[in-house]
Amino acid sequence: MTASHDDRPPVTVLGLGAMGTALARALLGAGHPVTAWNRTAAKAEPLVELGAARAATPGEAIAAGRLVFACLLDYASVHDVLDDHADALRGRVLVNLTNGTPVQARTFSEWAACHGADYLGGGIMAVPPQIGTPDAFVLYSGSRSAFETSRGALDTFGESHYLGGAPGLAALQDIALLSGMYGMFTGIIHALALVRSEGTPLTEFVPRLDRWLSSMSGWAHAAAHQIDAGDYASDVPSNLGMQAAGFVNLTRAAQEQGVSPELLEPLGALLRRRAADGHGHEDITGIIELLQKGTPA
Amino acid sequence: MTASHDDRPPVTVLGLGAMGTALARALLGAGHPVTAWNRTAAKAEPLVELGAARAATPGEAIAAGRLVFACLLDYASVHDVLDDHADALRGRVLVNLTNGTPVQARTFSEWAACHGADYLGGGIMAVPPQIGTPDAFVLYSGSRSAFETSRGALDTFGESHYLGGAPGLAALQDIALLSGMYGMFTGIIHALALVRSEGTPLTEFVPRLDRWLSSMSGWAHAAAHQIDAGDYASDVPSNLGMQAAGFVNLTRAAQEQGVSPELLEPLGALLRRRAADGHGHEDITGIIELLQKGTPA
Repeated sequence: MTASHDDRPPVTVLGLGAMGTALARALLGAGHPVTAWNRTAAKAEPLVELGAARAATPGEAIAAGRLVFACLLDYASVHDVLDDHADALRGRVLVNLTNGTPVQARTFSEWAACHGADYLGGGIMAVPPQIGTPDAFVLYSGSRSAFETSRGALDTFGESHYLGGAPGLAALQDIALLSGMYGMFTGIIHALALVRSEGTPLTEFVPRLDRWLSSMSGWAHAAAHQIDAGDYASDVPSNLGMQAAGFVNLTRAAQEQGVSPELLEPLGALLRRRAADGHGHEDITGIIELLQKGTPA
Repeated sequence: MTASHDDRPPVTVLGLGAMGTALARALLGAGHPVTAWNRTAAKAEPLVELGAARAATPGEAIAAGRLVFACLLDYASVHDVLDDHADALRGRVLVNLTNGTPVQARTFSEWAACHGADYLGGGIMAVPPQIGTPDAFVLYSGSRSAFETSRGALDTFGESHYLGGAPGLAALQDIALLSGMYGMFTGIIHALALVRSEGTPLTEFVPRLDRWLSSMSGWAHAAAHQIDAGDYASDVPSNLGMQAAGFVNLTRAAQEQGVSPELLEPLGALLRRRAADGHGHEDITGIIELLQKGTPA
């Protein structure tokens, strides 16, 4: 079965940094006619060689595509590029893959709706070389019709996850995943600093760290169940009070080894506050109540 | 082939909390004659039913075993229990599995050597129900002869990892692994707080977090190679400067959602300091140089 023309609609890519270029390549590879625009026009050269058309202005680029992908530096750039070409967006699907906060995504989706675009926000969970490989997945939220219309094109980037109609959801979960990764990185870098302080080659230590973190990663599932249920009753041997007390050894060992405990200290402080609030007999999961006290903006 | 008596030497277990009890059960299960002591004698009851002998004093317990395992609350307890029975340790192997810092382990190993014990320090990477299962591993350091003599008994707890002759190494790597785990937990709990702020059930989100953290866990290997080589040159698309700049979105998104960014902030501060020091073009791994400035105690 050969694909009809409709399976590979013409697309526009605005912004040809490393990520925008990777997206455009994936779309070209799948047979979409691609029109590309970048402020520094030279960045389009490699794509033109692969068959893309280069547009002189964002408006010209938008006019050439049924789906418009924006992958720009930040929301200031998004407005710089699109504000003067808003009318061209009417009736088109706009897929915005620019990094930003949920509030920025929500605000921009209102601007896009106001100009008649069918808006989808995205968060790419991959680095550019992973685009088009099974390692990549991309979060989307906003218009379901925009998601369904562009699904074939989206799936060329990686696994597509539609999270729902709220336009900020993809940005939120993107940032949640990145935050989770950075937390893991803080633990790793602190562990490596401790082990290096005794002169042990870190490549010897890392397989042990890897094994240990993998064996403890199930904690996320247990924590999610407890938090969803709002029940922090402990059925594990180490309750929050014991862990708050034991945490002292971690801080002290870091100091003894000449390693700053600054990456660990905020968790120690939360454990102590939660224990002082009378929750020492519960699981540590309950510290989420200390993180989350306000109301979303 | 049946084991000779020497394959299952008589052992002593001092301290019958959840962990000490699990160790004693594993030793009994493997056929070692076990003599157990605990300050609150009633805690020995379940082990006596399984065939253990109960000792009235630490000295009596030590006299009955060729290998002596200490698994007590902390180093203050270790001295409370052993100081009056130090002579009984002469010529015996002492395996100390009490939680503490590397300095505590080193200091105690000197005390033990002074009283003629062959000393091995240990760090148990498991919770009590995992003892004796393939999920458990235990780090050891100190006397190699003590490790080799007691190897059969040690292997009943889980996989045995001998790290070298320095008596504090096991405690250090135990604490490094725990610190790594707590770092991962901070990332997870922050991510869950962000996602909960929009009302999404966390059990829906967690498989995505799991997948993402697994795909990013290779960072530890890359970081270890760079740190061992002392070369932080970046060959990835996101150098430290870009990540320091992008970090602003993480903090801002947390604030927008009513989630305290306190668990993330120390890493953001390190990234900004390292960028300000002129290392923005390198990988983020170089922040280890900011953590580790002192000399081990």
